Amino acid sequence: MLNEPIKNMEWIGDAASGHLRMLDQTRLPGEEAYLECRDVQSVWDGIKRLSVRGAPAIGIAAAYGCVMGTQSTADNPAALRQAVTQTAEHLATSRPTAVNLFWALERIKRLAEQTADLCRETLLAEAKTIHREDAEMCRQIGKHAWERIQPLIETTRQLDGQAAGMLTHCNAGALATGGIGTATAPMYYAHEHGLNIAVFADETRPLLQGSRLTAYELGRAGIDVTLICDDMAAQVMREQKVACVITGADRIAANGDAANKIGTYNLAILAQHHGLPFFVAAPSSTFDLALSSGDKIPIEQRGAEEITEGFGNRTAPEHVKTYSPAFDVTPAELITAIFTEHGVIEPVDETHVRENVGQSHGV
Amino acid sequence: MLNEPIKNMEWIGDAASGHLRMLDQTRLPGEEAYLECRDVQSVWDGIKRLSVRGAPAIGIAAAYGCVMGTQSTADNPAALRQAVTQTAEHLATSRPTAVNLFWALERIKRLAEQTADLCRETLLAEAKTIHREDAEMCRQIGKHAWERIQPLIETTRQLDGQAAGMLTHCNAGALATGGIGTATAPMYYAHEHGLNIAVFADETRPLLQGSRLTAYELGRAGIDVTLICDDMAAQVMREQKVACVITGADRIAANGDAANKIGTYNLAILAQHHGLPFFVAAPSSTFDLALSSGDKIPIEQRGAEEITEGFGNRTAPEHVKTYSPAFDVTPAELITAIFTEHGVIEPVDETHVRENVGQSHGV
Repeated sequence: MLNEPIKNMEWIGDAASGHLRMLDQTRLPGEEAYLECRDVQSVWDGIKRLSVRGAPAIGIAAAYGCVMGTQSTADNPAALRQAVTQTAEHLATSRPTAVNLFWALERIKRLAEQTADLCRETLLAEAKTIHREDAEMCRQIGKHAWERIQPLIETTRQLDGQAAGMLTHCNAGALATGGIGTATAPMYYAHEHGLNIAVFADETRPLLQGSRLTAYELGRAGIDVTLICDDMAAQVMREQKVACVITGADRIAANGDAANKIGTYNLAILAQHHGLPFFVAAPSSTFDLALSSGDKIPIEQRGAEEITEGFGNRTAPEHVKTYSPAFDVTPAELITAIFTEHGVIEPVDETHVRENVGQSHGV
Repeated sequence: MLNEPIKNMEWIGDAASGHLRMLDQTRLPGEEAYLECRDVQSVWDGIKRLSVRGAPAIGIAAAYGCVMGTQSTADNPAALRQAVTQTAEHLATSRPTAVNLFWALERIKRLAEQTADLCRETLLAEAKTIHREDAEMCRQIGKHAWERIQPLIETTRQLDGQAAGMLTHCNAGALATGGIGTATAPMYYAHEHGLNIAVFADETRPLLQGSRLTAYELGRAGIDVTLICDDMAAQVMREQKVACVITGADRIAANGDAANKIGTYNLAILAQHHGLPFFVAAPSSTFDLALSSGDKIPIEQRGAEEITEGFGNRTAPEHVKTYSPAFDVTPAELITAIFTEHGVIEPVDETHVRENVGQSHGV
């Protein structure tokens, strides 16, 4: 089976009357249902209620939303410009902490301001460019990552004669981006090239993104994926079922410290203990070079109910105290390499980080 | 609040017409309901459907079950002896892998065979002795463990001024034993002596014993307990919220390698990385001195549905592959000390293991 990665969104039709088809990720893995977003509010709702999630995917959805915001407006540059500004302002309120959302909206607004003969087609073309660029970025990450990972997989496979795998956490996949994901990019890349890989996906408590999303999208694409509970990772490593660990990142400091979904730091320690490389895959936009180290990254706390009634039933005592950090920070010294669209950062330190992503950040 | 630990079972009445009151642990944490087991079959059912669980608790329930097996028999030694043998044979089929079950049944059978003037009172007295001895063993473990742990807690508290804690996994608690548990024993012990402790309980996927049982029984006893997901443990350690990790064990080899609930090995590695001691608490009967190391312990695989639809809703794609080892083995070199009813095994190696438990094993 050699299937396409799942499409989390697609523009249907032309600029004047087209609309955004959006996969409703809240209904995964039970149902693959699509929302037909025909106005700005339905895009806003889709972002708000997590039908579309993942920083790059949210940005792309918002860009398409801006196009729809102009469809009921007179077709002249001034009117279109005003509609874009108003739409962008509204969409920015859908998820106020999503950096990529603002980045994409700014890009569309800037285009609208700087284009004298602005028309809807120009706006749609820009939204599609944002989408395509993200897909291309994922592909580049996948290529760089796979070139680094392939020898590990090959070596392990020769040693024990069985398919060796990669372990991942949460969902830094096609569902979260405009392309083949970041942490999943080398998996899709290898699969497209007909190379056998085996993926182990942590279920990723409390919100089970690994179970609901990663296992879903990889399995659907025909990639060999095995779901485990988070507390089984060390045993899987000990049994040499995986040759490396690879995760995404939400924010990376100048020294390479990487904030990502809670549980990532666990895996980095376990990988080091078993002598396995621990990789991070993320676009250069994830780096925050103003941040000298990960200590400066604030850790959001999540609500108790995600732990105590996460599966539909209450599974913990009433009024139990919980502690639920949303993220953790993996220190650079535990990260073997970071893959960006520009290449491989290895070893992970400030010099190599700046060499790799400094140019995209204008430093 | 200084409450008693929860009672998982209690004999009500006399030997001739009394019965076993058994906490139905399958209804925790939602409801504290008791089963009134008035015949052997209801004890068998209670063991089978996990109303009573934990190796020591199962053994105790089976011993009481043997008493009930004699209640409809003529009150003479030969008839009682025959009833005990038949009852024990039947109860042994309730959970065929539970070593303590056989041990307790053998003990009751031996008593029946060796007592010339056997009567029901003698059998009940023996069942109560098994129960009381287990409670006493837990208390001894708690005392030895707390003497070792207290300085760690005190030091940490002085350093950062806040209550320092212990992290535990699964349920090696009062619910699983005839007393204050094994891993939980130092917690109850400290609490009874009016000393403040803070416990962090891993929820323990897939079956959530930490969430459903440990958080329940500790909270009910008035002990400060905080529930976390398994993948948050490293972050909790990094933030110095715990001064040590303590778990139970299912089987310990002669060299100190310890098999326990999946996820224990994870914690041992994470503790080592953070410079925290990792402790195991278990009665001497847990040791299998015929086993030279943990490599020889077979690891049972569990069914997919515990991961994919554990709690009422399906949370993973249909037909997804899973890997679900029930146990893992923590190598002795990651274990700082093991607490038994006889004292502290530290450092953990074959010499110290045999010194501590050799006598109980007749070696």
